[in-house]
Amino acid sequence: MISLASDNYAGAHPEIIAAAGAAAAGTGSAYGDDPWTAIAEQRFKKIFGDDISVFFVMTGTAANVLSIDAVTRPFESVLISDCAHMHMDECGAPERFTGSKFIVVPSENGKLTVEGLRPWVEQEADYHRSRPKVVSITQTTEYATVYSVEEIKTITDYAHRHGLLVHMDGSRISNAAAALGLDFPAFTKDAGVDFLSFGGTKNGMMFGEAVVYFSHDYDDVFQYTRKQGMQLVSKMRFVGAQFEAFLKDGLWKRNATHANAMAQKIAEALKDAPGVTITQPVDANAVFAILPEKMIEELHKKFHFYVWDNQTNEVRLMASFATTDEEIQAFAEAVKAIG
Amino acid sequence: MISLASDNYAGAHPEIIAAAGAAAAGTGSAYGDDPWTAIAEQRFKKIFGDDISVFFVMTGTAANVLSIDAVTRPFESVLISDCAHMHMDECGAPERFTGSKFIVVPSENGKLTVEGLRPWVEQEADYHRSRPKVVSITQTTEYATVYSVEEIKTITDYAHRHGLLVHMDGSRISNAAAALGLDFPAFTKDAGVDFLSFGGTKNGMMFGEAVVYFSHDYDDVFQYTRKQGMQLVSKMRFVGAQFEAFLKDGLWKRNATHANAMAQKIAEALKDAPGVTITQPVDANAVFAILPEKMIEELHKKFHFYVWDNQTNEVRLMASFATTDEEIQAFAEAVKAIG
Amino acid sequence: MISLASDNYAGAHPEIIAAAGAAAAGTGSAYGDDPWTAIAEQRFKKIFGDDISVFFVMTGTAANVLSIDAVTRPFESVLISDCAHMHMDECGAPERFTGSKFIVVPSENGKLTVEGLRPWVEQEADYHRSRPKVVSITQTTEYATVYSVEEIKTITDYAHRHGLLVHMDGSRISNAAAALGLDFPAFTKDAGVDFLSFGGTKNGMMFGEAVVYFSHDYDDVFQYTRKQGMQLVSKMRFVGAQFEAFLKDGLWKRNATHANAMAQKIAEALKDAPGVTITQPVDANAVFAILPEKMIEELHKKFHFYVWDNQTNEVRLMASFATTDEEIQAFAEAVKAIG
Amino acid sequence: MISLASDNYAGAHPEIIAAAGAAAAGTGSAYGDDPWTAIAEQRFKKIFGDDISVFFVMTGTAANVLSIDAVTRPFESVLISDCAHMHMDECGAPERFTGSKFIVVPSENGKLTVEGLRPWVEQEADYHRSRPKVVSITQTTEYATVYSVEEIKTITDYAHRHGLLVHMDGSRISNAAAALGLDFPAFTKDAGVDFLSFGGTKNGMMFGEAVVYFSHDYDDVFQYTRKQGMQLVSKMRFVGAQFEAFLKDGLWKRNATHANAMAQKIAEALKDAPGVTITQPVDANAVFAILPEKMIEELHKKFHFYVWDNQTNEVRLMASFATTDEEIQAFAEAVKAIG
Repeated sequence: MISLASDNYAGAHPEIIAAAGAAAAGTGSAYGDDPWTAIAEQRFKKIFGDDISVFFVMTGTAANVLSIDAVTRPFESVLISDCAHMHMDECGAPERFTGSKFIVVPSENGKLTVEGLRPWVEQEADYHRSRPKVVSITQTTEYATVYSVEEIKTITDYAHRHGLLVHMDGSRISNAAAALGLDFPAFTKDAGVDFLSFGGTKNGMMFGEAVVYFSHDYDDVFQYTRKQGMQLVSKMRFVGAQFEAFLKDGLWKRNATHANAMAQKIAEALKDAPGVTITQPVDANAVFAILPEKMIEELHKKFHFYVWDNQTNEVRLMASFATTDEEIQAFAEAVKAIG
Repeated sequence: MISLASDNYAGAHPEIIAAAGAAAAGTGSAYGDDPWTAIAEQRFKKIFGDDISVFFVMTGTAANVLSIDAVTRPFESVLISDCAHMHMDECGAPERFTGSKFIVVPSENGKLTVEGLRPWVEQEADYHRSRPKVVSITQTTEYATVYSVEEIKTITDYAHRHGLLVHMDGSRISNAAAALGLDFPAFTKDAGVDFLSFGGTKNGMMFGEAVVYFSHDYDDVFQYTRKQGMQLVSKMRFVGAQFEAFLKDGLWKRNATHANAMAQKIAEALKDAPGVTITQPVDANAVFAILPEKMIEELHKKFHFYVWDNQTNEVRLMASFATTDEEIQAFAEAVKAIG
Repeated sequence: MISLASDNYAGAHPEIIAAAGAAAAGTGSAYGDDPWTAIAEQRFKKIFGDDISVFFVMTGTAANVLSIDAVTRPFESVLISDCAHMHMDECGAPERFTGSKFIVVPSENGKLTVEGLRPWVEQEADYHRSRPKVVSITQTTEYATVYSVEEIKTITDYAHRHGLLVHMDGSRISNAAAALGLDFPAFTKDAGVDFLSFGGTKNGMMFGEAVVYFSHDYDDVFQYTRKQGMQLVSKMRFVGAQFEAFLKDGLWKRNATHANAMAQKIAEALKDAPGVTITQPVDANAVFAILPEKMIEELHKKFHFYVWDNQTNEVRLMASFATTDEEIQAFAEAVKAIG
Repeated sequence: MISLASDNYAGAHPEIIAAAGAAAAGTGSAYGDDPWTAIAEQRFKKIFGDDISVFFVMTGTAANVLSIDAVTRPFESVLISDCAHMHMDECGAPERFTGSKFIVVPSENGKLTVEGLRPWVEQEADYHRSRPKVVSITQTTEYATVYSVEEIKTITDYAHRHGLLVHMDGSRISNAAAALGLDFPAFTKDAGVDFLSFGGTKNGMMFGEAVVYFSHDYDDVFQYTRKQGMQLVSKMRFVGAQFEAFLKDGLWKRNATHANAMAQKIAEALKDAPGVTITQPVDANAVFAILPEKMIEELHKKFHFYVWDNQTNEVRLMASFATTDEEIQAFAEAVKAIG
């Protein structure tokens, strides 16, 4: 079986494994007070500037939940899209840990709009109702679309004018950077994002996500929150070492560029197939498409992928750093054979 | 600097790194539905029998908190010792996630006693007060002492007679098994323990702890709780692969036996030194001792270790799988030179 | 100023005050173990049958949150309407206390529909997503409309077929009973509702709401949950005494019937006024209507009422047990004078 | 049966009932935005000065939990005595709602000491451990003893020097004021207390407690927290009206002075009885004493009171505003008859 199911069905890149192996020898303080973690933190500062704070955690859910928890009180709400991972795929972790209300706002192609935010942001403050504090956007979105810098600025400007912070769930931030052809700050810090979940796992690491604040305001709180949130791993060095390998000479970019290119080939294979409609712009490493039921059945014999919407037969086909040309070739042939 | 600070100041064992590397290639379902995780789960069943459920998480705190959360409601309390990791070193994670009260009971040499439990267990039930549901013991204890099978049975018998479950925080369970010269079930399942946190990290893994229930009663709940608790890692294969390497042919035992032996040598080096009192039985991989203030100062120039109690100058000297004979030799010589 | 703002702008009915006064003398056990509470509990059993459990709390929010908390685990979700009080007006109390996800479903005239529930109820279970456990309906709805017995049965049948429980937020349950011309069980217990928040405050009591389970399954849990939820008042007798006065010979019905009748008169006053559209069926004690902006301004000089929707100039005009014919007469004249 | 069980076994004072009755007529905004609440708030400002904020809630547990919640984050801890109501009698409500750790410190005669606080306050800050933020004392204590102004100042000075806030659980604050012969500010605000739970219920009200901050710093947070904490009652006027009656011309003092005097008579009746030891200073409205088992049995035939400690036969005999001379006379005679 060939997997086009998810980028986290892939393993880890050999350079990542090598880096972990190199970090295995020697003693170093636990809980992040070690040289490997320090080097990785410096790496993030080289990318984003010195006025940031970076903290490592183990899962994307944790990066989202803990980064938001540190900037909110439980009576403050978070505005998210109706397809947000935090809404659909985190089993209520955000609500349970933060105690906050996560308010669902309609999206277009996976993207929030100011129009959608307005009714919640501009209502009169009133202590019967949770008070909005954070807007969270996902980049790339859950539909593998990518916000342009302009689109992000529109949202961050609006949010800041109303006293809100903007979080970016960047579990696939490398794919976005590769798609936009930009460095990370251009569509995060420089576009007004206040803090982000910076993903590593989906793009070739074993484990590890980073929380990045473009401010030192949350340092004190986050250190405690991370521990209380069960995410302070003792051998943090192994996260640091992976991130250094990921970032130091463009592994993140090679991996993401490859995955995005594979998605383009998937789209290519599908676009003229009879009965197929590609439903979302193919901006990054996944293709959303409505397929004839028969085609889904046939393809499922050789390929693992998700039916996103049972009602419409919309499927998601996702590539990773490890997806090979041969696998896509096989897919293209299978589509052709069915057609 | 030589570290005798903690067993989690060590890196990872080469066999662990090799196993992770071997798991890096190929696709597999995410979130634990992969062959590496399945093999590791089977390994646990070979050890403990088929009537268990095992779940992997990333930190010891998470193993403790989530395993307890699944068996309690927030109005039920957990009885723990006054030196328990959950009380002293988890930043209130247990209280925050479970919503339960963790009631502190006096300990002797790090061990709970029935006498200490009695006032809480035998009080009349009353909804003004949290109702006891779990007794949690730590093996090895925070003082690196080891409960005998008899001591454990005394507690589990008492707990069960009063309708309570017994949890074991086994973040150093390998050291306990090595110290007792017993296989794992003898002092857990067979001694009446109901569920445990089974540690890997402190004994040579990069990351990874297991929650083991000697029952299938919590399967449904725990799967959701783990996700909601931000501990369901997507590339679970890397935990599974490490655990398989850890357990399949005694790496756990070699590592723990070595660490315990190193602690004996530390004790040997200290026991006749002038002004030194060893304060706890040296059952496993750490020595607790009161040292002259001057000696602490001198030793701190070359060795990293913790002063456990500022008032009394009690220190903790801890060995790991990676501690070398040369390091201990150097320590012994330093002690002699000061004396 | 005459208030048509809310039924909780009214004070308390004289019979309620008299009952509280009569309960003030003499000693009685605290926390509900007293004769006044026992009598009120018996009164509920006379109404609903002996196979119920009833518990008193102080606020409607508490009745909703605690009753749901007792039947859910934090990874289980609750399906509510997009205008539900729990969604719009409880400041995230449901999420914070229960840790659960409250999923918002579209409504029609304030009512949930099976069509709206279906996508959440019939999705495949998956531990990445909160699992639905409760459907909550509001009777009368936030738009003062009333579910018919048939409408309720349709929902409870559907919910039960899928293993869900049905909660009714009955903060205005008396107004619903009066509107339907039915006794309480006919549209709750007998229509398949599993548990309810039974309101007293909005219909003439000082304080006090009841949680009613049509089962004894939650007795043990709820007693602890209520205490842990900060709702176990010591002098419970004063809630019991009020409820007995409320229920024993139809005060609830007289009050609700009066309030509903007053709303009809409000509707009467508005229905032919130029530029006015009544937007919801006037089933109970409130009228929702779009008014010309000028009319709103003029009326606000003498009458207190809420603009429900700033965009459309929809207002809510609500009557209570204490609303007088004279007040409504004055309102009708004011409308006429403006028209 | 005569009750010496608890002051909350009493009903409500006639002046309280009259005040509630007087507030029953007329409309007023809900949720505290009404004249009765405003008058009561002014009354508190007359007592404590204008630079306070006062908020009403329904239970003592809520006053404690919510007032502390507003000043803490979940990783911050609260230091309480080993007999504190929050530790022994609130069913884990403090932990569940705040997410914080409540650390138990030894007490003497129910009172915290600096010596007991020191190990927790003066430990090095470390994000593995909850960080102390609040010290909470109870006045009168759970043993009905009363902190002197000096004792309070010693604690508040120490706490402030270490950056901690001091909370007073004043569910029986009137009894303390009467015992000390001081006005409220002398042993609260003027003695360095930062915020307090001001009790009404146990001294003659039906319901109602006040949270008083000697600062406006928490106004914004507390308003939301109270709502999210399910304590914002709609007909707040009935709490305000009771508090005004309680405070305006000394009802609180008459009631508390009476209850305290009754306790003195209980002590008088016991002090020379054979086999009886009074175990705590009788500062306020309760007597703690060890009684012969036989005497307990005999007295229990006519009097309701609690055995505080089964092991030692220590009992608590508590008087309220409603305890009569005749009841105490009957008690004295019963003691004499047994002796």
